[in-house]
Amino acid sequence: MLLKILELVGIVAFAMSGALVGVVKRLDLFGVCLVGVFTAVGGGIVRDLLLDIHPPSSLSNWRYLGSALAASVLVFYLHTVVSKLNREILVLDALGMGLFATTGATIAIEAGAQPLAAALIGATSAIGGGILRDVLVNEVPLLLHRDLYAIPALLGSAVLVAARELGFGQNIALVLGTVLATGLRLLALWRGWSLPQARVPRED
Amino acid sequence: MLLKILELVGIVAFAMSGALVGVVKRLDLFGVCLVGVFTAVGGGIVRDLLLDIHPPSSLSNWRYLGSALAASVLVFYLHTVVSKLNREILVLDALGMGLFATTGATIAIEAGAQPLAAALIGATSAIGGGILRDVLVNEVPLLLHRDLYAIPALLGSAVLVAARELGFGQNIALVLGTVLATGLRLLALWRGWSLPQARVPRED
Amino acid sequence: MLLKILELVGIVAFAMSGALVGVVKRLDLFGVCLVGVFTAVGGGIVRDLLLDIHPPSSLSNWRYLGSALAASVLVFYLHTVVSKLNREILVLDALGMGLFATTGATIAIEAGAQPLAAALIGATSAIGGGILRDVLVNEVPLLLHRDLYAIPALLGSAVLVAARELGFGQNIALVLGTVLATGLRLLALWRGWSLPQARVPRED
Repeated sequence: MLLKILELVGIVAFAMSGALVGVVKRLDLFGVCLVGVFTAVGGGIVRDLLLDIHPPSSLSNWRYLGSALAASVLVFYLHTVVSKLNREILVLDALGMGLFATTGATIAIEAGAQPLAAALIGATSAIGGGILRDVLVNEVPLLLHRDLYAIPALLGSAVLVAARELGFGQNIALVLGTVLATGLRLLALWRGWSLPQARVPRED
Repeated sequence: MLLKILELVGIVAFAMSGALVGVVKRLDLFGVCLVGVFTAVGGGIVRDLLLDIHPPSSLSNWRYLGSALAASVLVFYLHTVVSKLNREILVLDALGMGLFATTGATIAIEAGAQPLAAALIGATSAIGGGILRDVLVNEVPLLLHRDLYAIPALLGSAVLVAARELGFGQNIALVLGTVLATGLRLLALWRGWSLPQARVPRED
Repeated sequence: MLLKILELVGIVAFAMSGALVGVVKRLDLFGVCLVGVFTAVGGGIVRDLLLDIHPPSSLSNWRYLGSALAASVLVFYLHTVVSKLNREILVLDALGMGLFATTGATIAIEAGAQPLAAALIGATSAIGGGILRDVLVNEVPLLLHRDLYAIPALLGSAVLVAARELGFGQNIALVLGTVLATGLRLLALWRGWSLPQARVPRED
């Protein structure tokens, strides 16, 4: 029950981040909603395609789609207010990222994926929506060149898989992985951590 | 039989719109053909991936691939002529969009998708090719910020699903949904309807 | 055995080409690795999605993922050295492209795909990674407007399918198709062959 509520919080945070990008890009109402909804459920759709779950569960889930759509419409009309909540949205987004990484990996394990594949698919659930968002609005995905976002997702889903392999219960594994992923992401935001960039790149 | 012919007309119109974008983007002969063919069959491929139809039926369909390829080659060599037919292509494209939305939803229902998923997958069949086209040529998808294109597709495929749920026959449902989607699209083109854009967006 | 080694060589060449693009685009360490790995295994993942192989075999293959990751990290730190090997990477990339086209088509045939679909899916295995690479870093895919890259891939995988249909053994078919695809690609590089571009395109 708590998990369901937290997941919805994550969905709404993802949708808001996507819709805000759409507003900045001057999309119309439909474009803002599509980017918002896609950011929220895109990672889960890719996860389900990789795991042979058809049709992807997000596409049949009124609650997810409805929440993401409502959040996107809200952002479209109230973006000046919402964009002041940037800090709060980043925190909720970090929570959603951690949850998606671990629940995604759990779903992959249950669908019979090997440990390596399960960890990768879990991380894909968490970062896929953000990548699709940036590809749709024609930007180089943010997580490829700024922020520490994907590494926490990978670590969280790897920890979940390792904990399950070591015999820990599902709930303990979920808490461990999510706290690690979300905590590391928040720490990176707070301390301004980022990965090194290549030095003196050629300009083509 | 009539349906098959109309579908081919839609495929050719989609391929032409894709190939024209490729010419404008100065792609080479292969690039123009790939973008044309992808615009024509991309939505159907995504639909089949979502519905677990393997390999996607478009990839085995000589008639679709051949028509889309022929239309793309034609556009490559005769683009100055073809681009004068812009209005006619838009009308045929609207017909193709309406047909893809309703036949896509029909295929989804037959593959066992729930109503919500069937309506979304139908709309995806209709708009997926255009989104893939714009992502391939590195543009923000047109339907995210201009034109009323996706809403008619969604309405058409929703009407088809509703009609089937209410017990209407397959043919009546197809006609209802297609006429609504194509008609609304043509009306929007004629009257210059579009959705609102967010006001005073922040420039990042 | 030889085939396995050659495939690894192809994987490494693909990863290097992807990672070099990531360095030029000033991605961070994670971004360079993700683009490198995706370029190497992305075509195979799309192939497996089209063929209903779940989860995609590349995601469970430590050897492929590890080699691609190691090659990407190497490029990140030694890109000034690696970029001087551009010519050598192009040759290895041509080998990888030819192998992926023919092994991809072979896997498609074994998964029950019809000849046309098998040839298209084989070519997709070979060119899919490069397209995903360019979409991720926000460029119009190179093979759509420069170079003769996709045509050799298509011919190689078509020859493999034709040879198998004509009753040739699997190994002979692999050699025929790969030599044709890789040879034609190298010849095109050497002679500077390219496809025509549309003349006097409209500028929108």
